[in-house]
Amino acid sequence: MKIIGEKINGTRKRVAKAITERDVGFIQDLARKQADAGADWLDVNAGTRPSQEPDDLVWLIEMVQAVTDVPLCLDSANPKALSVAIKAVERTPMINSISGEPKRLEGILPLAAEHDCPVVALAMDDNGIPETVEERVNIVRRVMAETRRSGLPDDKVYVDPLAMTIATNVQSGMVACDAIRAIHEAYPDMHFTIGLSNISFGLPARSYINRTFLTLALAAGLDCAIIDPLDREMRAALVTAELVLGRDRHCLNYTRSYRAGLFDQDK
Amino acid sequence: MKIIGEKINGTRKRVAKAITERDVGFIQDLARKQADAGADWLDVNAGTRPSQEPDDLVWLIEMVQAVTDVPLCLDSANPKALSVAIKAVERTPMINSISGEPKRLEGILPLAAEHDCPVVALAMDDNGIPETVEERVNIVRRVMAETRRSGLPDDKVYVDPLAMTIATNVQSGMVACDAIRAIHEAYPDMHFTIGLSNISFGLPARSYINRTFLTLALAAGLDCAIIDPLDREMRAALVTAELVLGRDRHCLNYTRSYRAGLFDQDK
Repeated sequence: MKIIGEKINGTRKRVAKAITERDVGFIQDLARKQADAGADWLDVNAGTRPSQEPDDLVWLIEMVQAVTDVPLCLDSANPKALSVAIKAVERTPMINSISGEPKRLEGILPLAAEHDCPVVALAMDDNGIPETVEERVNIVRRVMAETRRSGLPDDKVYVDPLAMTIATNVQSGMVACDAIRAIHEAYPDMHFTIGLSNISFGLPARSYINRTFLTLALAAGLDCAIIDPLDREMRAALVTAELVLGRDRHCLNYTRSYRAGLFDQDK
Repeated sequence: MKIIGEKINGTRKRVAKAITERDVGFIQDLARKQADAGADWLDVNAGTRPSQEPDDLVWLIEMVQAVTDVPLCLDSANPKALSVAIKAVERTPMINSISGEPKRLEGILPLAAEHDCPVVALAMDDNGIPETVEERVNIVRRVMAETRRSGLPDDKVYVDPLAMTIATNVQSGMVACDAIRAIHEAYPDMHFTIGLSNISFGLPARSYINRTFLTLALAAGLDCAIIDPLDREMRAALVTAELVLGRDRHCLNYTRSYRAGLFDQDK
């Protein structure tokens, strides 16, 4: 199970402020803490100022790379920002994201293919996020036709089946899990990732929902997630799910995490 | 999802003491609290004094029935104790349990069939608990041939697939879940129950494992569990799993449980 650390995201107010003010300490602290907590990639999202995005993203990349070797996940829908950013990275980054939207496929996929980058592929297109498993699988089929044509191997693609909030459709969690199962069957080499927290939007006690959904998505085949690696309850849920799913040989990771205090109640 | 309250169990030291000393207050307190917490049945197990079991079980039944209308789950492998007990109950009880062991099938199944009782059926026989899903399914097939012959309808049978500890076999949780799936496919009217806590025997931070296993077993088709209904974290896990599994229409049970304080951190 791989973790993409989600905290350096300019769509969040506090991070946006740090980007605008070039608050190096704040950004580097987020980077260090997530790296120490075991993130496999650090998401960097420069936020919502389109004209500034290339400069902001390069600044973020430089600040983060100064304090950690963990590879980055370049989080942008803007091909221009991405093409500048990709020159600033020291290690092959993940790109977040392509989708069934032709603009993203044309603008972003060639960059990913050229640099042989792992890439997040969202199960949506110009018509938005479809309701049904079947429609999401169909979008992924179209995306995969393109990634294969570009020369990117299947195991570089991380499908995000997209979890909508349960508050408006109680089947949302199951649609995402069933999509993972169906896509895994069609493309066994492909990986899966997911932005977990949408699932609980608008509901109370969200961490319960997020952790339970993570457990069920892992059972369905999820092997990567965009989460806050500093969230100990989330990491405890992850380690426990891998144990119960029979993926933790000799319970080694579980007992090691226990000894490291991951299951202590004092959060 | 149905809950069998597990607390009145004479194999536990404190309860055994209460039975020996005829401590009415202690037993009735356990009964009331579990009923108030929403148990659908209250397990009554008179413990480990074979010669005393019929008397002890009848005493337990009378004490519990004096304070609650929740039906009982008569927990004994002793046909004699059960045949006496069944005369003392006011509402149709569940019987816990039959199995593939001929002695249990011959001694207990006729009682269940005569009184049209729901019955727990363990996926084991005289050779113990088999390792594989296939062998457990085979035992259940043999048990189901007998329950059908006895006239007991399929929907009165609650199969316990049996969860062994993950500490000695990391596949234990998945074997139980896969057994539920396979048996559900063969016998769609049958129910499932499980004694949860075995799964984590010998491991630390057991409640994490128990709750995660509950979530995955619910996804597999579990619709009843033998748990401590006073364990708020367990009930929170249950309510959240039913939500994420798409079984909580309009999120009503989840939001009601939240308002009732189930997700408060002060346990």
